[in-house]
Amino acid sequence: MNDFTKLSINQITTRDQWSLAQAIDGYASHGVTGISVWRDKLQDLGVKAGTRMLRDAGMTVTGYCVGGVLSARDDIVFQAQLDDNCRMIEDAAAIGAKCLVLIAGGLDEGSKDLTGARERAKEGLSLLLPIARAAGVKIGLEPLHPMVCSLRSVLTTLELANDWCDDLGAGDELGIAVDVYNVWWDPNLARQIIRAGSRICAFHVCDWLTDTRDLRADRGMMGDGVIDIPAIRKMVEAAGYDGYHEVEIFSERNWWRKNPDEVVSTVKNRYLQFV
Amino acid sequence: MNDFTKLSINQITTRDQWSLAQAIDGYASHGVTGISVWRDKLQDLGVKAGTRMLRDAGMTVTGYCVGGVLSARDDIVFQAQLDDNCRMIEDAAAIGAKCLVLIAGGLDEGSKDLTGARERAKEGLSLLLPIARAAGVKIGLEPLHPMVCSLRSVLTTLELANDWCDDLGAGDELGIAVDVYNVWWDPNLARQIIRAGSRICAFHVCDWLTDTRDLRADRGMMGDGVIDIPAIRKMVEAAGYDGYHEVEIFSERNWWRKNPDEVVSTVKNRYLQFV
Repeated sequence: MNDFTKLSINQITTRDQWSLAQAIDGYASHGVTGISVWRDKLQDLGVKAGTRMLRDAGMTVTGYCVGGVLSARDDIVFQAQLDDNCRMIEDAAAIGAKCLVLIAGGLDEGSKDLTGARERAKEGLSLLLPIARAAGVKIGLEPLHPMVCSLRSVLTTLELANDWCDDLGAGDELGIAVDVYNVWWDPNLARQIIRAGSRICAFHVCDWLTDTRDLRADRGMMGDGVIDIPAIRKMVEAAGYDGYHEVEIFSERNWWRKNPDEVVSTVKNRYLQFV
Repeated sequence: MNDFTKLSINQITTRDQWSLAQAIDGYASHGVTGISVWRDKLQDLGVKAGTRMLRDAGMTVTGYCVGGVLSARDDIVFQAQLDDNCRMIEDAAAIGAKCLVLIAGGLDEGSKDLTGARERAKEGLSLLLPIARAAGVKIGLEPLHPMVCSLRSVLTTLELANDWCDDLGAGDELGIAVDVYNVWWDPNLARQIIRAGSRICAFHVCDWLTDTRDLRADRGMMGDGVIDIPAIRKMVEAAGYDGYHEVEIFSERNWWRKNPDEVVSTVKNRYLQFV
């Protein structure tokens, strides 16, 4: 039986209802001790005030979202993106995030050069690693679902994330974030989770809705879809992961429209039953 | 420079405009010599009449769509689906289709047993192989995009299709249909196409739209999206495939609403430029 000691909520789950301050108060009032923070929300509150509030509430920050988008071919854009990631590394250090969640980025507008975009994103990642290491921040590389390959992430599989980690020969400053939504369909999932092993630095849960209507913002609450979440949880925990289970739900049509206290209550109920 | 000798059009591309008889006439009037036929359209016309019309028009039938959906756990449903596939094998033989395109099927309603559904679909495929062989029909196993895993195809990668072919130890009665839309995002694409080699019995083209709005029926015309189709064509041809290039576009919002002669003209233009 689960209890709530390892439950974290990614604040995107209440994106349209709560500021960061409200989310910290709201989650804490429900006994939730983990939160994943989004940059725009942190900026609204200010890094100093946010850091203090998170600490005062005793919150474990399971992630800071979302860095990366390093696939641009244009050197000026690429450098600007790198600089931006450096600022995010500073923020992540300030708020004590377990990792800076990093996505690869998609294809440049008009580009069909998937291989080139992958190389560029990997180059960008390699340039960030020493900065993250110096700051004591872990980067949580997150492969996304292949359906957002062109828009958000040319890193489409856990296998490729493992390949990049191998190739970059990084240490503790580089980990992998496993989100069931992105990987549940993958025939290689079990073996790539084993291969990821101690690299796994975040475990995100939600569900896949059979009538999915949007490539990005139509995720389901655990139990409303088809993902066997406990089976995947078992895999990541057998691989050595013992951190938080972070609920991350983008939901334009449903959860972003509901009373946020109801959302958190539902997260807690479903967590007990379906994670 | 392409000519049109290897251009085929899957009649789903003009699904809402043309019956099979109209599609045969229409494509032929544009000098297109290949067609892929859908079962409901063939049934509307009748197998005998359709067979005669296809032959009289000199059409090469590059595929018959779509068999499979063999993932049901329930024995009665499973058997009914097998029987139905046997009838499709007969149809495919009658119309002289290069292959019966077969998809695995999704998850049973309420099921989260992805592994079980994969085993079941593979079992179903194994039972169809001797029947296909006896009928002189090739099954073209088609992996679909991971985003339709729960709905249409637990066979989500070309690698898994290759694994199934290896495991089933089949002969010429089993091939693989490669559709750029389903596989373009796959980091293992190049090596899995080489591995597929002479198994490749169909090559389908269309494009991935960056603003995709529907998981199934929002494919783009070649050139309107991000897929480097010539690069993938080069891979399949280097692997030994020398058959038709079949244009297959599901497009609720665009191509199904247009004048079908305009659709075919556009297909021809885009084929020259983007395939």
